[in-house]
Amino acid sequence: MIMKTIAEYSAEIESALRSIEYPGGKLSGLYQPIEYALSAGGKRIRPVLVLMGADAFGDCAAKGMKAALGIETFHNFTLLHDDVMDKSDIRRGRPTVHKKYNENTAILSGDTMLTLATKYVAEVEDDKLRRVLDTFNDMALRVYEGQQLDMDFETASEISLDDYLEMIEGKTGSLLGAAVKIGALIGGASDKDADLMYEYGVMTGLAFQIQDDWLDTFGDATTFGKPIGGDINNVKKTYLYVAAMAEGSKDVEALKSAYQIPAGDVRVKAVTRIYEKLGMNEKCRKAVGHYSAKALKALNATSLSEEKKESFRKLAEKLIGRKK
Amino acid sequence: MIMKTIAEYSAEIESALRSIEYPGGKLSGLYQPIEYALSAGGKRIRPVLVLMGADAFGDCAAKGMKAALGIETFHNFTLLHDDVMDKSDIRRGRPTVHKKYNENTAILSGDTMLTLATKYVAEVEDDKLRRVLDTFNDMALRVYEGQQLDMDFETASEISLDDYLEMIEGKTGSLLGAAVKIGALIGGASDKDADLMYEYGVMTGLAFQIQDDWLDTFGDATTFGKPIGGDINNVKKTYLYVAAMAEGSKDVEALKSAYQIPAGDVRVKAVTRIYEKLGMNEKCRKAVGHYSAKALKALNATSLSEEKKESFRKLAEKLIGRKK
Repeated sequence: MIMKTIAEYSAEIESALRSIEYPGGKLSGLYQPIEYALSAGGKRIRPVLVLMGADAFGDCAAKGMKAALGIETFHNFTLLHDDVMDKSDIRRGRPTVHKKYNENTAILSGDTMLTLATKYVAEVEDDKLRRVLDTFNDMALRVYEGQQLDMDFETASEISLDDYLEMIEGKTGSLLGAAVKIGALIGGASDKDADLMYEYGVMTGLAFQIQDDWLDTFGDATTFGKPIGGDINNVKKTYLYVAAMAEGSKDVEALKSAYQIPAGDVRVKAVTRIYEKLGMNEKCRKAVGHYSAKALKALNATSLSEEKKESFRKLAEKLIGRKK
Repeated sequence: MIMKTIAEYSAEIESALRSIEYPGGKLSGLYQPIEYALSAGGKRIRPVLVLMGADAFGDCAAKGMKAALGIETFHNFTLLHDDVMDKSDIRRGRPTVHKKYNENTAILSGDTMLTLATKYVAEVEDDKLRRVLDTFNDMALRVYEGQQLDMDFETASEISLDDYLEMIEGKTGSLLGAAVKIGALIGGASDKDADLMYEYGVMTGLAFQIQDDWLDTFGDATTFGKPIGGDINNVKKTYLYVAAMAEGSKDVEALKSAYQIPAGDVRVKAVTRIYEKLGMNEKCRKAVGHYSAKALKALNATSLSEEKKESFRKLAEKLIGRKK
């Protein structure tokens, strides 16, 4: 059986998300913000990975749908709480939940989403429940640990590239890995294949995140969808920032000075110039290539047919992009 | 086999809580606040109920220990987030987590506790996993719904006694019910017995909460452990408040006026006098008796031996107290 396109899986998820019925009436204060958060659209890459995993290994995307909704609900729970912690007011062009409602709502509706996500993910066949649940819970801990590191980085004086990689593996990689692994387990994949798909997901996540960091500085504003230089103006500890600071040359001092320039185009240009001088453009693209290759290596080692592997290659390509 | 005393179960839990090893090093920012929160002591009634359930139905308190730690971790997760939402600075005589650390820590370490709790509770035999997990997740949703109603009550103009009971059943009853039900399931109880124990736990929780409301107004400061009248000064929507406001007589107007008096002894005395005039002292004690009786009725309907039933009667008595 031929797998569907990413757009087709994504449309199925969108429709399933819309058909979830939440308690209303006097409980709408708790559940309406959840509906709001989940209606913001987006690529739905994480739940697509669940469906693709289930389809690839068991020809049973439908069986993976509830877990896919669980993964998307979990992802959005982390966004609700992260937005409170980061004091972010806008997400996908709309007010974040704590701005549209209030902080207490973002906290409590977020908690509710985590439990709903766990419930959805647990709706798998009995003989798969233990492995799926363990994969989900362990992933959740990795995500919180990644967020903790990310928050610590804001005030840390020195961050190693390993610290940075650990952080994005937690925040971004583990969720992509768990999504496709849970799908694979639902599809009946062997433990070996399930672990290889986890590796494929994690490495794709790392490549995606580093590419995202790269795009913020070296990308094209029209295709990136966000203004260039946002991370530089927010002194975000990106791959570029961490790798450049680790260079140890006298350019590091110049970089620190450039970050002292008031936020704006002048700072962005000055920092970008130093990044280029330090070879960060190339280093970053090499890192993306490195993790993409690791993802494909894991994928190729699975027992999947060439045709199915091709579907996952396309997904990684779509996610990581080719905007060099 | 004779069951242990509540103090013995409680000591076992205290010791098991202390022996949990959390990741340290660079992740201590995430896990240290969890240790802090769980070291505050307290009655540990909820995990005691898990152990008692496992012991009563299966003579296997040890098998229930991990789930007991899960229930206690869950309970403390709700305290971390509730304290942020209610802006409470002190709990059990110590700064709350968001005061000792900060709000972001209380949110993220709280999230981590919810996932840890789910992991611990899931450490049961495979054939019990589904029922235990469903009981846990459904309970968690009831707790959030109760907290939502509680927050809504702060600004609501009219609250019925049914609304109030729904709120405390969610916030307090469901957790006691789920704790003892999970223990019973681990012990191998039949579904019927497990459901009866759930009913025992929920009803004990209702009686406990109403008794707690009563003590705030009519209790003795030395045995209550808190200053009398705290709920009156905070305009808390207690059983007394809701039941009195529902009386519909002209005393309701007097009550509203009394609540306009600045917080302090004068207000507490004025409100207490009207509560007495409205017969709230007696009504409240009757309600406690009513739910206690329901708890015992459910307990008596189980297949447990008279001796084991007596252990659960003692627990309810200890919890609800006899401070009339």
